[in-house]
Amino acid sequence: MSEYILNLLPVTEEEKREFEAIAPAAQFLWTGRSRVTAQELAQATVILGWPRPGDVKKAGRLKWFQTMWAGTEEYDGMVPPGAQFTSSAGSNSRSVAEHMFASLLAVCRRLPAYRDRQREGRWEDQGPMKTILGGVVLVVGAGHVGGEFARMCQAFGAETVGLKRRVDGPLPGFDQVCPMEQLDAWLPRADAVALALPHTAATAGLMDERRLRLMKRDAVLVNAGRGSAIDQQALVRVMEEGLLWGAALDVTTPEPLPAESPLWSVPNLLLTPHVAGGMRLEITRKACIRQAQDNLRRYLAGEPLVNLVRGPERREEG
Amino acid sequence: MSEYILNLLPVTEEEKREFEAIAPAAQFLWTGRSRVTAQELAQATVILGWPRPGDVKKAGRLKWFQTMWAGTEEYDGMVPPGAQFTSSAGSNSRSVAEHMFASLLAVCRRLPAYRDRQREGRWEDQGPMKTILGGVVLVVGAGHVGGEFARMCQAFGAETVGLKRRVDGPLPGFDQVCPMEQLDAWLPRADAVALALPHTAATAGLMDERRLRLMKRDAVLVNAGRGSAIDQQALVRVMEEGLLWGAALDVTTPEPLPAESPLWSVPNLLLTPHVAGGMRLEITRKACIRQAQDNLRRYLAGEPLVNLVRGPERREEG
Repeated sequence: MSEYILNLLPVTEEEKREFEAIAPAAQFLWTGRSRVTAQELAQATVILGWPRPGDVKKAGRLKWFQTMWAGTEEYDGMVPPGAQFTSSAGSNSRSVAEHMFASLLAVCRRLPAYRDRQREGRWEDQGPMKTILGGVVLVVGAGHVGGEFARMCQAFGAETVGLKRRVDGPLPGFDQVCPMEQLDAWLPRADAVALALPHTAATAGLMDERRLRLMKRDAVLVNAGRGSAIDQQALVRVMEEGLLWGAALDVTTPEPLPAESPLWSVPNLLLTPHVAGGMRLEITRKACIRQAQDNLRRYLAGEPLVNLVRGPERREEG
Repeated sequence: MSEYILNLLPVTEEEKREFEAIAPAAQFLWTGRSRVTAQELAQATVILGWPRPGDVKKAGRLKWFQTMWAGTEEYDGMVPPGAQFTSSAGSNSRSVAEHMFASLLAVCRRLPAYRDRQREGRWEDQGPMKTILGGVVLVVGAGHVGGEFARMCQAFGAETVGLKRRVDGPLPGFDQVCPMEQLDAWLPRADAVALALPHTAATAGLMDERRLRLMKRDAVLVNAGRGSAIDQQALVRVMEEGLLWGAALDVTTPEPLPAESPLWSVPNLLLTPHVAGGMRLEITRKACIRQAQDNLRRYLAGEPLVNLVRGPERREEG
């Protein structure tokens, strides 16, 4: 049975030829669209890219689906039984880490306040600034993104501490890796606290008011994982009391953040609308293509796929 | 004759004791003020810090003056003949480089536009972003500041090219160091162009309209040296045509920038009011203190001073 590959990735002509060289016997459907026809779905054995979640469910012959996203929540329960499901985890880590680092430095240098003054045509010194040089950066969630971000902080002269559920030894970019249980012990020692966590039952509300108050008075809080990790009302209260140097949030609950949220106008809090990742950098797009090509090779060779969310189902022996 | 040291530096009690241990026979006048009395000036053999320029002129017994600034223009002609004059060059390099780097990343990630949307309570994607990873960063002026900034860019994955008047060999932080004459050849190849130049006859107007137009359409221009290095009117014209990805300027001509300047509102141009250096970081203050202590040791031992702007005058043999 030949493979029918719905390739929804944003590919160049050269990349198309690379895919075709990897799977010369396969039929490809190239489309930049996320909508595909019922007939195409009925034929597809492989889908690469970002189809609408409901469409994936209709692909009765599907054997493998690779999403272009790192997060996979929206496809939960949508991938037909028997099909393998892989993510593009790691492909946008660099972009997210750059955004976290850029936002951290911006808040340290009071760039949001300077931008506000600029808009008003006012040349006004905003006083002391902050550096992470010689300070401690606590990275909560030492995965792909956390590791890239930590490496940047380390190169900038900070001491980096990563927290993760299971500590299996040292990790590049981190001076220390500690179990998540040490969060309360590290919060009072960190000059910057960066959250790079997925949404899970364990991470929701992690930074509650008690923990926010454990932070140094002049620490910076950065979040580019999921908004649910922070108790937003508590953050507003704490920052309006004058605690924390500043904060940079790329994620909120809910998203989009409602216009009436007090979060929009907390002083020295920089808010960006969940734009750290996605396809905003060419390097992210290229990383997605490379991951898809690598997994296609593995798929055709019958090797285990990388970034497996759900593997092939075992059939009971009859 | 004993030394009378007007120490205007912002010192801690511990640092005072360090100074006194370096010069136990000297008399110290400690003051956080920049104004000193006529009597104090008449007695002073050494001044450390940031006195008013006119006051330095009145110090008739002065043998050595160290300013807290890296730039020394304002004291030109003010230091009495016979006195040595030293600067604090290098003490705020890290701060200036951090500001340049933070501003560059902010513009790459469109943070000024996101901040504007935030102020309006609008959750709006601003499209593609930019990274210097894998790109070329051209640093015009490969001195203390340029070198620190280049090191940051290099650690972030950029190829760094430094331009300076005299090339004496490789420099840390730079993949290449080239003579200033190669500016026109490098401009079309750079993804970011950073100016870290003093004001001199040679640097004034360096980035004129012709050179701005040599830059890549999606390059970023950063300036934290002196505003005179850029033809501001040309920059406004060029950017309003849609050339350049963005710009980050910490210096302008004149300063403060007049409220009616069109520079305030150029899209994706981030303007900060000459705040990259100064005493905004504790590490800058400490570096100044260390430099002053080091030079005080040298002065008392009759050794050559570091960061000499003007040495001891040679008296003609009679």
